[in-house]
Amino acid sequence: MSYKKFDAADLDFLKGLLGADRVAARDEVGEDYCHDELGGTFARPDAHVRVKTVDEISAVMKYAHAHCIPVTVRGSGTGLVGGAVPLEGGILLDTSLMTEFIELDERNMTLTLEPGVLLMEVAKHVEEKGLFYPPDPGEKTATIGGNISTNAGGMRAVKYGVTRDYVRALTVVLPDGEVVELGGKIVKNSSGYSLKDLIVGSEGTLGVVARATLRLLPLPKFKISLLVPFPDLSAAIRTVPEVIRSASVPTAVEFMEREVILAAEKFQARKFPDSSADAYLLLTFDGASQQEIDLAYDTAAKTCLANGALDVFMSDTQERNESIWSARGAFLEAIKASTTDMDECDVVVPRTEVAEFVLFSKELQKRHGVRIRSFGHAGDGNLHIYVLKDDLGDDEWKSKLSAVFEDLYGKARELGGQVSGEHGIGFAKKPYLAESLSPAVRALMRGIKGVFDPKNILNPHKIVGE
Amino acid sequence: MSYKKFDAADLDFLKGLLGADRVAARDEVGEDYCHDELGGTFARPDAHVRVKTVDEISAVMKYAHAHCIPVTVRGSGTGLVGGAVPLEGGILLDTSLMTEFIELDERNMTLTLEPGVLLMEVAKHVEEKGLFYPPDPGEKTATIGGNISTNAGGMRAVKYGVTRDYVRALTVVLPDGEVVELGGKIVKNSSGYSLKDLIVGSEGTLGVVARATLRLLPLPKFKISLLVPFPDLSAAIRTVPEVIRSASVPTAVEFMEREVILAAEKFQARKFPDSSADAYLLLTFDGASQQEIDLAYDTAAKTCLANGALDVFMSDTQERNESIWSARGAFLEAIKASTTDMDECDVVVPRTEVAEFVLFSKELQKRHGVRIRSFGHAGDGNLHIYVLKDDLGDDEWKSKLSAVFEDLYGKARELGGQVSGEHGIGFAKKPYLAESLSPAVRALMRGIKGVFDPKNILNPHKIVGE
Repeated sequence: MSYKKFDAADLDFLKGLLGADRVAARDEVGEDYCHDELGGTFARPDAHVRVKTVDEISAVMKYAHAHCIPVTVRGSGTGLVGGAVPLEGGILLDTSLMTEFIELDERNMTLTLEPGVLLMEVAKHVEEKGLFYPPDPGEKTATIGGNISTNAGGMRAVKYGVTRDYVRALTVVLPDGEVVELGGKIVKNSSGYSLKDLIVGSEGTLGVVARATLRLLPLPKFKISLLVPFPDLSAAIRTVPEVIRSASVPTAVEFMEREVILAAEKFQARKFPDSSADAYLLLTFDGASQQEIDLAYDTAAKTCLANGALDVFMSDTQERNESIWSARGAFLEAIKASTTDMDECDVVVPRTEVAEFVLFSKELQKRHGVRIRSFGHAGDGNLHIYVLKDDLGDDEWKSKLSAVFEDLYGKARELGGQVSGEHGIGFAKKPYLAESLSPAVRALMRGIKGVFDPKNILNPHKIVGE
Repeated sequence: MSYKKFDAADLDFLKGLLGADRVAARDEVGEDYCHDELGGTFARPDAHVRVKTVDEISAVMKYAHAHCIPVTVRGSGTGLVGGAVPLEGGILLDTSLMTEFIELDERNMTLTLEPGVLLMEVAKHVEEKGLFYPPDPGEKTATIGGNISTNAGGMRAVKYGVTRDYVRALTVVLPDGEVVELGGKIVKNSSGYSLKDLIVGSEGTLGVVARATLRLLPLPKFKISLLVPFPDLSAAIRTVPEVIRSASVPTAVEFMEREVILAAEKFQARKFPDSSADAYLLLTFDGASQQEIDLAYDTAAKTCLANGALDVFMSDTQERNESIWSARGAFLEAIKASTTDMDECDVVVPRTEVAEFVLFSKELQKRHGVRIRSFGHAGDGNLHIYVLKDDLGDDEWKSKLSAVFEDLYGKARELGGQVSGEHGIGFAKKPYLAESLSPAVRALMRGIKGVFDPKNILNPHKIVGE
């Protein structure tokens, strides 16, 4: 790596381009911009710049390319794997001011918007028009640009799929500043290699997502949630494939254990509807009519009871739904608040292997003497396993964490899983991705990186990068 | 291009590897294997080899790579753009004997199979178990390998998406013979660049699809079709976005005109339920309950009538459904039978631009003095426009065809469309793809081709290849 040393002339160029108020020099950059949500990866940029237009992104990239300055893109910094941390310094290109809704095309059912729009704003914007953007990752203050960059999944993936499935078109600024348009307001496409799908999930290493056109659906008018207590976690999770196999695919299937519910109750100072059982499934169904979801509810409830469920609580009021789902939304924060530091594993395994994987993760608590909590998307096999530092010393914590991760990722590979379901690889999960890919696949990924970014200026050291 | 001249030693190697009965030398190759369904692209391979296993594919590729022999993969040869025609001779690698269903995993709802399985066999195989593979391209004798290679779409894309959305995992043989596994039986994935999505739609230019794992859904138990006559095509097509915008997304929305229906009636010697109107929409809805589709039917019928429909014929019997859909399935063959030769344009435009595009294509009949027929997927904006040779001389036909295509693809670009919705680029549509891509995008695609296939032995001259 031989990047140019960032100097006063570079800073002057950026200030000239964007105005001094949108450029912060190295020593003015707040700590918050040197790490993401989990904080395990830390690095200071030479300049933090806040862009407002596609042309500004292009101008910054052209300059960086000509002068060989590394650039790392950042949205709202809610990542968990260090993807937006500028490991080589250089320019931190912040898109969080690009918050415009450019066009809601109701007839083509698409929404074109800037990358800095927050996920929660997207939902609000389209639901007012009776439309629906299905991807629903837990972190609602993430930007849509960040969601696209990690191919974020969320709770509704069981029925609706992931972010990739809802990206119709992208405006991408390439590392040399060239602006390209990929895809379109079209449903089908078989016109050359799908560069759009290559950009989705590439974590800002191939190009900068400068604008996106998303696919929308009609908003389902009816919704129902079922909270289903089970005597233990295995019984709960083993029921999931049968529920999904039945005629009505649920929108979401989450699993949760009492200890995590209790943590959320404490964190939120608010009671969960029930916390008497060891394990729960939380199911949601949506549809265009009451009959449709009644049928789904009925079938699912019977399947759960036939598989050992202790009860089935139906939740079709706004209030009760909120109490359940706000608890679910608080799990990550609640676990975080219960310890001194933590790191997470976001593996995805085949749906049938979820129970085995979660039980395996519990064994590791004893084996390594460390507290582990988990919850996740039972319906799509994407698990979030949190390893907690508690009172461990820094060195002990690091060595235990690394041992637990080795075991978890090894198990995931054994079960036919992948390193990341939705949080991405960034920097933190690089060694585990490297272990899971064959040399040929790694070489292809590196080759692709080289095609897009021969000078390796865009988000170096991430995914498979050097 | 400096390929090795294929000689007797190469033939001997292949015969030794596969047995003499699965290897045909250049002069023994039947005409059928020198072109695809449309016949406009013609070339003879030096050897036609029929492989049976992943290892055989790998061994053929290793040999071809070591000796720099071009290889073109072929399924059942139902392509329309010359994608499977071996333009540089060399080896025609035929996967049509690889017809095994490897695993139907009902709990993970996936089907793992060999690439030579025909699309119609897939449907049959999974429907017996109450499962459903949604992609439904018109050509049911295409192989699943071919469908993956073109990212085939089909009629149900409005509701269910395209082949890409149902490919969970691929076993791919790279040009050097290395076998790689991409994806898995997993719902979410954010573990590095999506090579799986790069292979889907790459028309056999990056690797050989040797095995696939497809995602299945529960089979919708209820289905209804509506045949809706309109006074003219514009009125019919302009209704489509409103129908899709309403609460129940239709499974399919096709448009058809009387002249194409009459051709199909003649070809099939079988009456269509109605042919009195100038234009029709054919809508299908499916769902898990009768109420669900009744509601959908009711809403859609009202929307159509409010937008000028002359009537609404409901079709919920197996018999009537078959008469409608078999006519729809026969359109391509019927048009083909009505003329001496033809070529097609498979553009995709935003849903809102379909009417304008089809009317534009009709004007071209007069402007260029050539017969043009069309039908297609009004719901997803993917149109099939057929230019017919009739009594034109070869040279006149070629020059008119090229002029019509220039106009059609120019118009598609103007309307925000793409060159191919589902048939791919192959060789026939290369110039039009080249016109539609920016130099930067073309350079990226060529770069990617170079990463996968530095010796350019796999399906040369296709898509953006040299």
